[in-house]
Amino acid sequence: METGKLPPGILGSLLQGIPIEDNRVLIRPDVGEDAALIDYGDRILIAKSDPITFASDLIGWYVVQVNANDIAAMGGIPRWFLCTLLLPETINEDEIREIFSQLVSACAAINVTLVGGHTEVTGRVDVPIATGFMLGEVDKGKQVLSSGAEVGDSIILSKGVAIEGTAVLAREDTETLLLHGMSPSSVEKAKNFLFDPGISVLKEVTLLQNKIEIHAMHDPTEGGIATGLQEIGFASQVGMEIKSEKICVFQETREICSILNLDPLGLLASGALIIVVPEEQTDAALTILREGQIDACTIGRVVPQTKGLLMRNKIGLLENIPTFRRDEIARYFAEHASAT
Amino acid sequence: METGKLPPGILGSLLQGIPIEDNRVLIRPDVGEDAALIDYGDRILIAKSDPITFASDLIGWYVVQVNANDIAAMGGIPRWFLCTLLLPETINEDEIREIFSQLVSACAAINVTLVGGHTEVTGRVDVPIATGFMLGEVDKGKQVLSSGAEVGDSIILSKGVAIEGTAVLAREDTETLLLHGMSPSSVEKAKNFLFDPGISVLKEVTLLQNKIEIHAMHDPTEGGIATGLQEIGFASQVGMEIKSEKICVFQETREICSILNLDPLGLLASGALIIVVPEEQTDAALTILREGQIDACTIGRVVPQTKGLLMRNKIGLLENIPTFRRDEIARYFAEHASAT
Repeated sequence: METGKLPPGILGSLLQGIPIEDNRVLIRPDVGEDAALIDYGDRILIAKSDPITFASDLIGWYVVQVNANDIAAMGGIPRWFLCTLLLPETINEDEIREIFSQLVSACAAINVTLVGGHTEVTGRVDVPIATGFMLGEVDKGKQVLSSGAEVGDSIILSKGVAIEGTAVLAREDTETLLLHGMSPSSVEKAKNFLFDPGISVLKEVTLLQNKIEIHAMHDPTEGGIATGLQEIGFASQVGMEIKSEKICVFQETREICSILNLDPLGLLASGALIIVVPEEQTDAALTILREGQIDACTIGRVVPQTKGLLMRNKIGLLENIPTFRRDEIARYFAEHASAT
Repeated sequence: METGKLPPGILGSLLQGIPIEDNRVLIRPDVGEDAALIDYGDRILIAKSDPITFASDLIGWYVVQVNANDIAAMGGIPRWFLCTLLLPETINEDEIREIFSQLVSACAAINVTLVGGHTEVTGRVDVPIATGFMLGEVDKGKQVLSSGAEVGDSIILSKGVAIEGTAVLAREDTETLLLHGMSPSSVEKAKNFLFDPGISVLKEVTLLQNKIEIHAMHDPTEGGIATGLQEIGFASQVGMEIKSEKICVFQETREICSILNLDPLGLLASGALIIVVPEEQTDAALTILREGQIDACTIGRVVPQTKGLLMRNKIGLLENIPTFRRDEIARYFAEHASAT
């Protein structure tokens, strides 16, 4: 098997085999739905698990962000966090303290309580691996799914792509980028993308909550914005017409992708949020986000499924939204590893 | 760092550094408390995370049991499960389907709904690693902690030790055991310990629930029954007087420990449950368990903390309950690996 998520066909068939007989489970695991929803009367409990298997210098901080994002993308508020840390035998006490310190401060920054987990030193891993488990809540009726997009809706993208991939590549491959002429200040700026513009989408959700009718949300991660859009299309059984030039790709991202020969549309995209709203709410949503210091713009609209998932390129031609069998960063690291 | 759990001193100091400002969090992570308790009005939500980093042929089944046990040991009913699977690049589709099938059937057997997770192929692991997240519930007031033991209470042990360690050793080291003269039928019986007597403690909890007043429970795992007893002693700030000959050690466990030079009291003990009850409830508890086909006996009593954690050996002498810096199985595998 290639590194990365399972191929959607295999994953889909495995998930279809899972029986759900509990009527308190409102959303079952499925391709494109990020978390489980469990009925608690007037509230819904949201549960999400995601691991961090790379970006090792900041895993404690990172694992909190990606799990919180998936709660937020369902319209929820992250509340309680558990973390399982698998540590290599080469680790020392200071390094363990640093990971714990990241966990504690990242949770505190978003008002989440670290309530448990498991820490184990094991010969099975050669880098620290953190698996997060975030619990959140949303008032019943306020949950937002990937499956709610309707024909005619506007598709808004916050911040831009690919914040996460850009930062990881700048941190892991600093030397290559400098050797290819990227300026040291641009590399430093790209490294800092994790914090500015940041990979959290909590702020956009908080800004829009209870003010805008939202039909669907999804935070694109592996496989980039292209995969994120396809996942909403699949879950909502709709088509899309996207204008590629409306997708904000950061200058540093363009430069890194050009040097490393990667497509920014298929690169780790945490930090951006796809927000699908009724057309008449578009301007209000954009105004709220911009007043809250979050860049955002309309990148396209929802069309009938029969039209397909289309992207209008810079010279005005319609083509299919590109498909990435795996994230560009996984492809790059795999090719890079086999070349050395 | 040596393989296994972190040394309690380091873990304790890390956990003490975690702020808990959320008054819905009823139990904070601590040495000896197995799961987090979160207030949901008339119910309490119980959340637990535990990984499986060895026993690779049955990880899907295994990860459900150990997480369910920790919910049960707090008096709760396991309800929803998430699982993060990290898979090596060498895995094939059939092997992935087998792990999923184990997850689904293990959850179904205990009425738990598999509601989510994450499956990822990664070059960071060379065997499948499963991290489980179990959510359970208990009526408010019915939760049982490790910290509730009181002086004068009886200490009951269900089934015996060390079911889990025995099975894992028989499965991993079949050849060594046969070479040292253990009979093939005994080795097979030991391998099957995972299922008979089994590593689940759900049944004992279900039998006793609402019938017996329980002051404390704990399912001993890493570090064996000795560590489990010490964890209750630490959490409840009490001493203990244990009669070593009352601890049921299975014949196959004795044989394997003798061949491999291990102490069964420090060996992975999932399958047994330590149950601390008021003295006057002891006989009723034992009767209920035995009528439910669960072997159990009183192994000792709770004494003041000043008396210490004591074990009366076979010739009647009192000594300290032995301390295992790490589980006997971890010590064995580490020494075995370095010798080859």
